[in-house]
Amino acid sequence: MSVGVLFTQGTVSGDPHIVLSEMLEQAEAADRLGFCAALTTEHTRSPEYFGSALPLAFAIAARTERVRVGTAIAIGPLYNPVRLAQDAAMLDQLSGGRAWLGLGAGYTPEDFACVGVGFDDRAQRFDEVVRIVRAAHTRETFTFHGDLHTLDDVAVQPRPVAPEGVPLHLGAWTPGGLRRAGRLGDGWITNALMALPTIAAAGETYRAAARAAGRTPHVTAIRFCWPYTSRDEALSHFGDTALAMARTLFDYGAIVDLPGVTSSDEITLDAFVADRFVFGTPDECVETLRRFRDDAGVDDFLTIFRYPTGPDQASVLEAMDLFGREVLPAL
Amino acid sequence: MSVGVLFTQGTVSGDPHIVLSEMLEQAEAADRLGFCAALTTEHTRSPEYFGSALPLAFAIAARTERVRVGTAIAIGPLYNPVRLAQDAAMLDQLSGGRAWLGLGAGYTPEDFACVGVGFDDRAQRFDEVVRIVRAAHTRETFTFHGDLHTLDDVAVQPRPVAPEGVPLHLGAWTPGGLRRAGRLGDGWITNALMALPTIAAAGETYRAAARAAGRTPHVTAIRFCWPYTSRDEALSHFGDTALAMARTLFDYGAIVDLPGVTSSDEITLDAFVADRFVFGTPDECVETLRRFRDDAGVDDFLTIFRYPTGPDQASVLEAMDLFGREVLPAL
Repeated sequence: MSVGVLFTQGTVSGDPHIVLSEMLEQAEAADRLGFCAALTTEHTRSPEYFGSALPLAFAIAARTERVRVGTAIAIGPLYNPVRLAQDAAMLDQLSGGRAWLGLGAGYTPEDFACVGVGFDDRAQRFDEVVRIVRAAHTRETFTFHGDLHTLDDVAVQPRPVAPEGVPLHLGAWTPGGLRRAGRLGDGWITNALMALPTIAAAGETYRAAARAAGRTPHVTAIRFCWPYTSRDEALSHFGDTALAMARTLFDYGAIVDLPGVTSSDEITLDAFVADRFVFGTPDECVETLRRFRDDAGVDDFLTIFRYPTGPDQASVLEAMDLFGREVLPAL
Repeated sequence: MSVGVLFTQGTVSGDPHIVLSEMLEQAEAADRLGFCAALTTEHTRSPEYFGSALPLAFAIAARTERVRVGTAIAIGPLYNPVRLAQDAAMLDQLSGGRAWLGLGAGYTPEDFACVGVGFDDRAQRFDEVVRIVRAAHTRETFTFHGDLHTLDDVAVQPRPVAPEGVPLHLGAWTPGGLRRAGRLGDGWITNALMALPTIAAAGETYRAAARAAGRTPHVTAIRFCWPYTSRDEALSHFGDTALAMARTLFDYGAIVDLPGVTSSDEITLDAFVADRFVFGTPDECVETLRRFRDDAGVDDFLTIFRYPTGPDQASVLEAMDLFGREVLPAL
């Protein structure tokens, strides 16, 4: 099991220059502490999330030496697929083969309207984007005739470092999306707040599709994370901001397994700490990660230490340090 | 007069990871030595040039503290204009207000075919891209109904650091392009090899259009550059690679003022050293830069020290160092 970090800040987090500088400092800490990745995410029109996920990964690549760099999750249909393939290949070359691309179909209409891309055909568009990126990364030249994209004898220069291209892991939580992840992806990425049984069930759908397509399944779980030595202190640093992010994601439509909850203000921290968060002493964090592995089939993790509204940078770096010293070596 | 550096390498330059690492090292040198900018350029399908100009600028931003970062020149019509505006604004925030965007309409059909964008309507497309980026950077929300783009009530978050947005300087060498630069741009960027009289004449067209639009004209000249203490040694390091790049640019259609020359192999180094290059002892470089200022109306410079095929990194850093020590302080 390897564990990376994922950055989820936006304009609501404070002065963007300071927030981005702190993000780079967290990426350097991840690189030093033995995390496997330092990835960005995006929404195009949101106070809680920045856009420009892939360009920001170039900045992270320039300040790190070991971690995987890239996205979890970039909204695939919003990109020109050849430019996406070019940028991902360039990121791979810049970073010496460390690029990792997590892509999703998108789920909020605002993301699409903001950049003038149709929302209704996003599944087809995403399908074509993934196939074009794969072709661009693995063939010297390629031709693609889809419903939405027509490309004749085009090429990406330079191609990625490895002949199989940059790993393409797909986010999904609908049955169709899970099957697409199995059919086209090198892995499936959960969303941040699926409960353990939801991951286990969705993972079955994904794994069956992957095996049917002759692919080895791989599951990456995005998890809220907060290791502590004192539970009260941890909740005071972490509780409000994690709950705020959970409520935001519910309002976005990204939490799909809370039966009976009809409004984000009904969400409580207790429900999430039980079966969704990696929250506890270092030993408890290790145990939780193993439980996700053993009971839900998770291979690797992307952890969120900092949320759109906090905690402050010193607390985040301290939590990352504790996790790096006492959790990572025990996995 | 301020002087920046411009990176013009591609897959022909060697192992892309090494070449990109050396590019970052040159950017750090530029930052340390008093150059005003460290910018990238792009073609999407060329052995001589990398693509991904704007994402690579994020990597440069992450490794520098003072220089302007951005492009000279990114091919405007190839971008989704709102994403371009978002990425440029994010680069500006990342770098603490150092972003600078040089955009051109593009001139090689291969650049457009590779990413599936139409070549024939590139002038109209470019016009709309520039106007959309400007609107996105300066208004809280905006609506745009053009021939090629329709956007209703969209916004870029975060916007750039300064309320006037990221500076938009436009490359051009046709009368229509020069008038567009005057009408829409914060400045005009020459191409790399226009002779002094060509810059002077084109500058008149540009300046008249800028003044008619109520804009203060600003001319940035891209120049091949090589300062030396020994002319023979300089020619041995610099001559072949500069000539190779000049021939490549002629073949691309980017050299428009060589009457009588019908084939790139007729191009000689002597003709370019006379009226196009910044080539000489530090004193001669200062004199040449002043001549471009006084006789051709150039305000600032972007210098190319390294070409697609060389020289080697040590020679480039040595030349940058000499320029930083003996030319920049004299300007």
